[in-house]
Amino acid sequence: MTDTTETLEHRLSRIHLALEQERLEWVDDVIADLEPAEVALLLESLPPNERFRLWERVPQEIDGEVLLHVHDEVRATLLEDMDHAEIVAATSGLDTTDLAELFEDLPRQVAEDMLRSMDELQRVRLQETLAFEEDSAGRLMRTDTIAVRADVSLETVQRFLRWKEVVPDNTDALMVVDRDGRFVGTLSLARLVANDPDMAVANLMDSEVDSIQVTMKSRDVATLFQTHDLVSAPVVDNRGMLLGRVVIDDIVDVIREDSEQALMNMAGLDEEEDLFAPVLPSAKRRAIWLGINLLTAFLASWVIGLFENALEKIVALAVLMPIVASMGGIAGSQTLTLAIRGLALGQISRTNSQWLLRKEVGIAALNGLVWALVVATLAVLWFDSLAIGGIIATALVINMLAAGVAGIVIPLLLRRLGIDPALSGSVVLTTVTDVVGFMSFLGLATVFLL
Amino acid sequence: MTDTTETLEHRLSRIHLALEQERLEWVDDVIADLEPAEVALLLESLPPNERFRLWERVPQEIDGEVLLHVHDEVRATLLEDMDHAEIVAATSGLDTTDLAELFEDLPRQVAEDMLRSMDELQRVRLQETLAFEEDSAGRLMRTDTIAVRADVSLETVQRFLRWKEVVPDNTDALMVVDRDGRFVGTLSLARLVANDPDMAVANLMDSEVDSIQVTMKSRDVATLFQTHDLVSAPVVDNRGMLLGRVVIDDIVDVIREDSEQALMNMAGLDEEEDLFAPVLPSAKRRAIWLGINLLTAFLASWVIGLFENALEKIVALAVLMPIVASMGGIAGSQTLTLAIRGLALGQISRTNSQWLLRKEVGIAALNGLVWALVVATLAVLWFDSLAIGGIIATALVINMLAAGVAGIVIPLLLRRLGIDPALSGSVVLTTVTDVVGFMSFLGLATVFLL
Repeated sequence: MTDTTETLEHRLSRIHLALEQERLEWVDDVIADLEPAEVALLLESLPPNERFRLWERVPQEIDGEVLLHVHDEVRATLLEDMDHAEIVAATSGLDTTDLAELFEDLPRQVAEDMLRSMDELQRVRLQETLAFEEDSAGRLMRTDTIAVRADVSLETVQRFLRWKEVVPDNTDALMVVDRDGRFVGTLSLARLVANDPDMAVANLMDSEVDSIQVTMKSRDVATLFQTHDLVSAPVVDNRGMLLGRVVIDDIVDVIREDSEQALMNMAGLDEEEDLFAPVLPSAKRRAIWLGINLLTAFLASWVIGLFENALEKIVALAVLMPIVASMGGIAGSQTLTLAIRGLALGQISRTNSQWLLRKEVGIAALNGLVWALVVATLAVLWFDSLAIGGIIATALVINMLAAGVAGIVIPLLLRRLGIDPALSGSVVLTTVTDVVGFMSFLGLATVFLL
Repeated sequence: MTDTTETLEHRLSRIHLALEQERLEWVDDVIADLEPAEVALLLESLPPNERFRLWERVPQEIDGEVLLHVHDEVRATLLEDMDHAEIVAATSGLDTTDLAELFEDLPRQVAEDMLRSMDELQRVRLQETLAFEEDSAGRLMRTDTIAVRADVSLETVQRFLRWKEVVPDNTDALMVVDRDGRFVGTLSLARLVANDPDMAVANLMDSEVDSIQVTMKSRDVATLFQTHDLVSAPVVDNRGMLLGRVVIDDIVDVIREDSEQALMNMAGLDEEEDLFAPVLPSAKRRAIWLGINLLTAFLASWVIGLFENALEKIVALAVLMPIVASMGGIAGSQTLTLAIRGLALGQISRTNSQWLLRKEVGIAALNGLVWALVVATLAVLWFDSLAIGGIIATALVINMLAAGVAGIVIPLLLRRLGIDPALSGSVVLTTVTDVVGFMSFLGLATVFLL
């Protein structure tokens, strides 16, 4: 029995110690009982040098599975470390779905070698799978489906299964098809074992089951699994012919990747980023995001520059102006995050966006007033000027209202333009709150104080 | 067959139209074929007024399930709308695990009524479940486990199942126990149906299977399910006695909630927040976050105030200073997000945090130099002063380096202090990048320009 309670951190220290002391047999001990996904996590948690030394100790039988479980960028580093023969060997045990996932990441020469080493059937299957769009049910589905006919008895089904000997992992139901291979329903193993062997499949099968179109988006498939508590589901083409099935463990991966993507994209990062990527390529990738931000920062500076005259005369303005921009930014990012979650869940539509906008403006007005009072009081005490208090209070309310509106309108607009709101929402929002914040505060000051 | 391709948006418009036209039978049409989780999502996507009108049309049989699927805050609004008898009726069909999840949200009087309406066995079970810590396997597990003995034949097992007639949802394996009820292994339904009926359970069962301690954290259970591709897993107490099983659909909920929490916490929001919460309570909750941010904003202002003298003399400083703070903030949040993901996956430990810090400082140095050059060039062109260019470039490099260090050190420190880095990491980080940014830029200017 593997020790399910050993933490990743503990495993990492054991690996670290073993490599430091050059005791490779200790490394083997750590990974001996691990699942490929656990080995993958270990590899991802090691700096390059240690990573490669661990990778060399991973048994070849699980190399392919491990490659499937690491993030794209880590995968690329591991593949670089293997020669062609090793890659072909590692991938030879994988099924078509998994192979298709790896295939496009392989060096061209290796991919060609691999195709040549396959038999005709495998090659055709792989090409069929690759023909489906990425992130569609066709790419997710497994073809290890067991199909039976509706007119046979449970007895016959069990005899058939005994003859086959092995039922694939995560099979909770058999597929029932008609004579042309068209999907007609499912027969759960639970029903198969709990009913009289003389009964016909037709009497027990579930024909109300949800079948998945092969072109359905992975994300929608995941929603279906979640709302219907599915373990597996049949995949059909547009004529209703059974092509395969999607299983829950692949769906769990889709859900996890989706959420990781949302988190990473909000900081302008790629969810496939390797925690231990080398400095140069990492710096390059992040530079783009910094450059975009620099544009918005210069825009804000340009706005400030319009009021040089006011700033020269009243230095308190320079001291206080970041507060107005910052409070707007925070309030806006709260609204934006709520909207991004709502859009991800599909909850925001034309029928309720108006209501939502009114609600967020209401919240912004309330919090704007409350915090304007606080800020104004502190500003008056600090700079001993009632006028500055009044101006910063007004500017704060204006900016918080703008933030509330922008927090709803920007993600909706980006979505309509086909841009991921999680990726670019916060940059656009900050631009708005900076510009409105500086403009309203310095503008009001210019009008009323000069 | 339900129309699995109808989007939530489309359902929402249908509900909206039906309510507008007072055609309640159209509402019934929309929800007739939906799963409780889909109804829950619909309810969450409606403003209060429409939400209550839909809730009244939801058939009582699924009320309990729907309540389980909505976020806590939405649940509270729905419960408020029900009288005691309705709540007791809605929850009567739920199993102990689900009841325990709802129980603590119920008004005290209703909870007492409910306990009274239960039979002795149910009450004891509920109290046992409630005794387990929240977010532990004990709260997650279902007790509908089917257990068999190792010394019987498959034939006997099947006769037993036929006698029971119903096998619970998501049963992929039967539990095998010894005469004292101690867990010894699992027998998958797949093996049960694919093998000779005369064989003994002992010869086919998997005794290497991972069992889960009842005190294990939900999050760790979820990791185990993901790394081992499990559909269900046995739960045992510290003596190895079988208590129940955890099933994948509850794990999918744990994974989803976890990721939602990370996203929402980063903006200082509660993941249970209702998208359509009323203005006043929403404003109150968010006010705390704004208040915390105001403290950091005033701290930044105070730093700026230290350099009033410099600002009075050179207005360009006021114009350019937000750029230094903003670039540091963005660079820092990239590092912070990467660290938060790494911590969530358990990938960052004492053995690799040094390496990670060096890498992030390296990236910060590179990007700092590149963007310092760009910013300096623009500043020189704008204000026609080489000195200002040199000062902003230096300040930018300093702030980016500080951001790189802070992006790693802050989340590690917060974690050590037992504070969720996703919740407070960004506030602390922004404080650092603001203070360092303003201090270095204005400080250097004071030294070299005055």
